[in-house]
Amino acid sequence: MKADGVGPADNVVTRPGRSTLDSVADRAGVSRQTVSNVINSPSIVAPSTAARVREAISELAYRPHPAARQLRTRRSQVLGLRVEQSNRISILDRFLHSVTDSATANDHRLMLYTADDDAAEIAAFDELVGRWNVDGFILTGTHPHDPRPGHLSAAGIPFVTFGRSWDPAEHPWVDVDGAAGTRAATEHLIVRGHTRIGFLGWPDGPGVGADRFAGWRSALQAAGLAPGPIVRCTNDLTEGRHAAAELLDLPAESVPSAVVCVSDALALGALAELGARGLRPGQDVAVIGFDDTDVAEVVGLTSLAQPLTDVAERSVRMLLDTIAGAGRPAGSALLQPRLVVRRSG
Amino acid sequence: MKADGVGPADNVVTRPGRSTLDSVADRAGVSRQTVSNVINSPSIVAPSTAARVREAISELAYRPHPAARQLRTRRSQVLGLRVEQSNRISILDRFLHSVTDSATANDHRLMLYTADDDAAEIAAFDELVGRWNVDGFILTGTHPHDPRPGHLSAAGIPFVTFGRSWDPAEHPWVDVDGAAGTRAATEHLIVRGHTRIGFLGWPDGPGVGADRFAGWRSALQAAGLAPGPIVRCTNDLTEGRHAAAELLDLPAESVPSAVVCVSDALALGALAELGARGLRPGQDVAVIGFDDTDVAEVVGLTSLAQPLTDVAERSVRMLLDTIAGAGRPAGSALLQPRLVVRRSG
Repeated sequence: MKADGVGPADNVVTRPGRSTLDSVADRAGVSRQTVSNVINSPSIVAPSTAARVREAISELAYRPHPAARQLRTRRSQVLGLRVEQSNRISILDRFLHSVTDSATANDHRLMLYTADDDAAEIAAFDELVGRWNVDGFILTGTHPHDPRPGHLSAAGIPFVTFGRSWDPAEHPWVDVDGAAGTRAATEHLIVRGHTRIGFLGWPDGPGVGADRFAGWRSALQAAGLAPGPIVRCTNDLTEGRHAAAELLDLPAESVPSAVVCVSDALALGALAELGARGLRPGQDVAVIGFDDTDVAEVVGLTSLAQPLTDVAERSVRMLLDTIAGAGRPAGSALLQPRLVVRRSG
Repeated sequence: MKADGVGPADNVVTRPGRSTLDSVADRAGVSRQTVSNVINSPSIVAPSTAARVREAISELAYRPHPAARQLRTRRSQVLGLRVEQSNRISILDRFLHSVTDSATANDHRLMLYTADDDAAEIAAFDELVGRWNVDGFILTGTHPHDPRPGHLSAAGIPFVTFGRSWDPAEHPWVDVDGAAGTRAATEHLIVRGHTRIGFLGWPDGPGVGADRFAGWRSALQAAGLAPGPIVRCTNDLTEGRHAAAELLDLPAESVPSAVVCVSDALALGALAELGARGLRPGQDVAVIGFDDTDVAEVVGLTSLAQPLTDVAERSVRMLLDTIAGAGRPAGSALLQPRLVVRRSG
């Protein structure tokens, strides 16, 4: 084992008794440069050679020290993503899987953090950049008056958001066209002969909820139908169930024959209320959700599926472009959801 | 802004036009050492002072470079966790949330990776340690003849597993007592008067499935009851539905009045088959699942809940002990699941 002549410039810090770049190169029968390439630029090494080098790295338990490389490139190749509070009936876990895949495919890794609110998340940005040199962030849950984009822009930290900019200030984002989704859902119900179509939504206000509301409204207008009854509540299954009860308790001539819901959580609440009243979803009252969660598939809920793999791939690519371009605006992308028709509507 | 006299020893690498430790200290009205403490040992700084320093860091967009610190401590304070293939109806996403929380509470961060099989995961270990200096790993999905623990042990890389060691070689692990869980579920059914209790399991073989099978078997033996019919299939909802159909198609005197299932996926398949036959879960046939997934809660499936927060906290603590003790064995912990009784059984 040869320990001299090895230092930060060689991307390795030796420790007593540890393997070195040289010992790996010897074992694999390649040059030091090739070993270095396998570690730093694997795409330029022939797969069979890379496999041999990785085997030698594994056998010798060789651990190159990344800090030296980081000092040189000033890039960690690590992206930050917030893990939501354990919100059941959400798509964000599936998004996390897709982002992990995309980051890995682009030779980056994902570092996770948690935050209870925007202020805590801003503190987390600073900590992750400061302590771990995270290269940039993928934000979720954008909303009007969101302080996070402004903070990151001012600090010169690259980011992209899953969720459009709801404020005049622009930044790179990828989003799914919620209005197009609920419009398609409503049109689907109209084609099936429904004329009194209600809406189960979140509390009034700008943002995602208003976008999804607008699609329902515009489809009815385009078909010359009066808007059905509207009930609003927070995004909770039990709240959704109570809200659905309100719709079903309307005078008979006002009870909708179909309900478009702003989320699967509310739609599942509606299904629970139908079940408790002995009503059959899709036959007595049609129900359509939004997000195509695991639960939707199991219980047969018609729902709008967001193209999460595509969202993740574009987000990662856009973020890497921003990082590479040092702040050059990376545009935006509005993707289309897809109606998955099941028994409920 | 003062840029001289600042170097790796001060945990900062200056870039032209960037803020320095000094400018942050000036702005916050504290010493350089205090700023350094806020970054490296926040727990020893008074919260109000730390808040003032963080504010200055934020205002000045100060970014200390972590590489120098990493070179000094040789610890990244980053732990690795694999993200499963997007397996719906699984608890591993909830486990990921809990591990993120525990790691953060212990001043560490989580880095994610993916791997299609054990060999790919072993390659990922080497890459994460080599390129990002990850301090250790939390493995999931241990199984007999699992090559991962041996590889990590040989390489001297700290790890802990969620899932016991199924091989003679011991390593630190945290697990949930599956046999105790299915025993409790079966006893619950016996107390409710069931005498013909079947089992819907995974394909025969050692490991988690055999453990859960053993609990069902032992509860029946202890009560002097003959084991009910057994059907086995892979962990898939549709497979579970077919397997349940096999049970229901048995001669009338052999059809079980209750079924203990090795997982929620199979139990949900059984519920689907009951529904298709117009049978009521919990009234005509009782069904109990394992894992208390989101879906179980929504559809009213009685199921065994794993104490995931506790598993995550112990796993992280055990891993940090192993990292601190440089290989000293950190023991093991077998935690108890809890039966959550709902409509289905």
